[in-house]
Amino acid sequence: MRKIAVLSSFMEEHHIEKIRTLAESCGFTADFYADDRLPRDKCADYEVLYGMPGASLLKHMTNLKWFCTPSAGVEPYTPDEIYPHEGVMLTNSAGAYGITISEHILMVTLMLLRQMPAFQQVVAERRWVRSMPMRSICGSTITVLGTGDIGTNFARRAKALGARAVYGVRRTKKAGDPCFDAMYGMDELEAILPETDILVMALPGTAETAGTLSRERIALLPAHAIVVNVGRGSAIDQDALIDALNSGRLAGAALDVMVPEPLPADHPLWTAKNILITPHISGNMSLGITRDLDVDLFCRDLANYAAGRPLQQLVDRKLGY
Amino acid sequence: MRKIAVLSSFMEEHHIEKIRTLAESCGFTADFYADDRLPRDKCADYEVLYGMPGASLLKHMTNLKWFCTPSAGVEPYTPDEIYPHEGVMLTNSAGAYGITISEHILMVTLMLLRQMPAFQQVVAERRWVRSMPMRSICGSTITVLGTGDIGTNFARRAKALGARAVYGVRRTKKAGDPCFDAMYGMDELEAILPETDILVMALPGTAETAGTLSRERIALLPAHAIVVNVGRGSAIDQDALIDALNSGRLAGAALDVMVPEPLPADHPLWTAKNILITPHISGNMSLGITRDLDVDLFCRDLANYAAGRPLQQLVDRKLGY
Repeated sequence: MRKIAVLSSFMEEHHIEKIRTLAESCGFTADFYADDRLPRDKCADYEVLYGMPGASLLKHMTNLKWFCTPSAGVEPYTPDEIYPHEGVMLTNSAGAYGITISEHILMVTLMLLRQMPAFQQVVAERRWVRSMPMRSICGSTITVLGTGDIGTNFARRAKALGARAVYGVRRTKKAGDPCFDAMYGMDELEAILPETDILVMALPGTAETAGTLSRERIALLPAHAIVVNVGRGSAIDQDALIDALNSGRLAGAALDVMVPEPLPADHPLWTAKNILITPHISGNMSLGITRDLDVDLFCRDLANYAAGRPLQQLVDRKLGY
Repeated sequence: MRKIAVLSSFMEEHHIEKIRTLAESCGFTADFYADDRLPRDKCADYEVLYGMPGASLLKHMTNLKWFCTPSAGVEPYTPDEIYPHEGVMLTNSAGAYGITISEHILMVTLMLLRQMPAFQQVVAERRWVRSMPMRSICGSTITVLGTGDIGTNFARRAKALGARAVYGVRRTKKAGDPCFDAMYGMDELEAILPETDILVMALPGTAETAGTLSRERIALLPAHAIVVNVGRGSAIDQDALIDALNSGRLAGAALDVMVPEPLPADHPLWTAKNILITPHISGNMSLGITRDLDVDLFCRDLANYAAGRPLQQLVDRKLGY
């Protein structure tokens, strides 16, 4: 019997049932490990793995052909050395996180524009301050770096809220979603930064994206601009960002990702001016919709795999996405 | 010369210029008082007043015919006794606040659904907690009490974010905006509360709306429901709300309005469980778009007034809106 191992700690009963039923109908048996741990002596039994194991486990899965991670980012799983042989296909779950992360982006963007942290401080002291300058998504010019599932879901919402323009900046030549007012290449970024009120970054962590928001590019943003990063921390020159925030060269930043994670208690990011830090929560499995979509994506590719069709979520390990 | 007094502390130069130019083209002179204070000995000069004076000022404006308040709520200006004579028309600026207040509602709704206050506490302690259960606007059933400018602007945004259904509950028989999935009368509220995940209240402060969210109605909401109030505090039985929050009968509440305002330092609302209090800021003049719309509404009615046409923003002082 061909066997699938599922690390199911994030799943509800209906997810397990869905996978089990589909697997059986395709000629597989699915085993579920609720504590996300696969016993070493079972590793060789499985042809398919769905879950987020420690990377060191994979070497022991000598018969593995397809490994699906429920995350969108695949950094821990890109090196060749961690795999038992050359033939393992890696898929990710890009597409499951657009709803939850776009709601996170909306929330933190509005919190920064509307001075919510300052008002929360007022309320914590039981004072009653009614007026501080605010801004709006309505009428703003927004630049989105990364025009995949996350960037596109956010762009649609920003347009519905009345953003003046939403520009997409893409890394590939893939056509963007029509919700973007215009699409630019990464080499055109400098030209649009000076008119950007809100810069949203949803880039994967690859060699190519490291340092995308450099000191020079931060200097091109207007002083009233805010930066929101939900992709990977490596895409921002953090020292330059801290300098810009503390000197008032930037109005605010909301970082859900940073380097390193967890952020050490004495790191200067914690105390940068007008910063809103969250502990990498925008896209985790907390939301039911995310869990549903994630399992749906795996099941779609399980049907593809069983039928010998190409996997839709296939990752190029060299590119990192 | 017919004269207009404008209390202009919230205005920028272009607003003043717009009013001045329009007034002159209609045969009026507009005087601007940047400190919002109209000298007692000038009061009788003015036929029109645009601003938010203390109610006691109005008695002295013996030649006043039209008073436009830049606020949406008109409670301080409804009693007959404050006016110098029976013939003063009152207009408000309902319509100027839909954008800013709907962005506030989105923000606090997402903060409650995504446990943002708890994550902010984690971050304040420089800890790194990645998982708490979250919920989404996407897929939620939302009931909006009050289907005017504010309720409608929010309903449109909630639909764009993928709400499963947005129900409008209206006080009048006015047809609702097509963005609402269904419209109900206030007498049908009990029927839809049990399926409401998010209850948004945008009701004016009138005798009719006082106590709308009673103890009995709170008990009909599911325990996972959240309540957001941006209308008037009097619409909620606050003692019942506090009981429901502290006993876990409700998952959270975001109040921008309450009774009394400012809230006394020892009031039990401050410490209710999962409450997010803001000091009546959702709809003030902090946002440029609000100021622009407000001045636009006044100018539209100034043109009407000068031409002898009915005023579009006219308030029925007996009804209170």
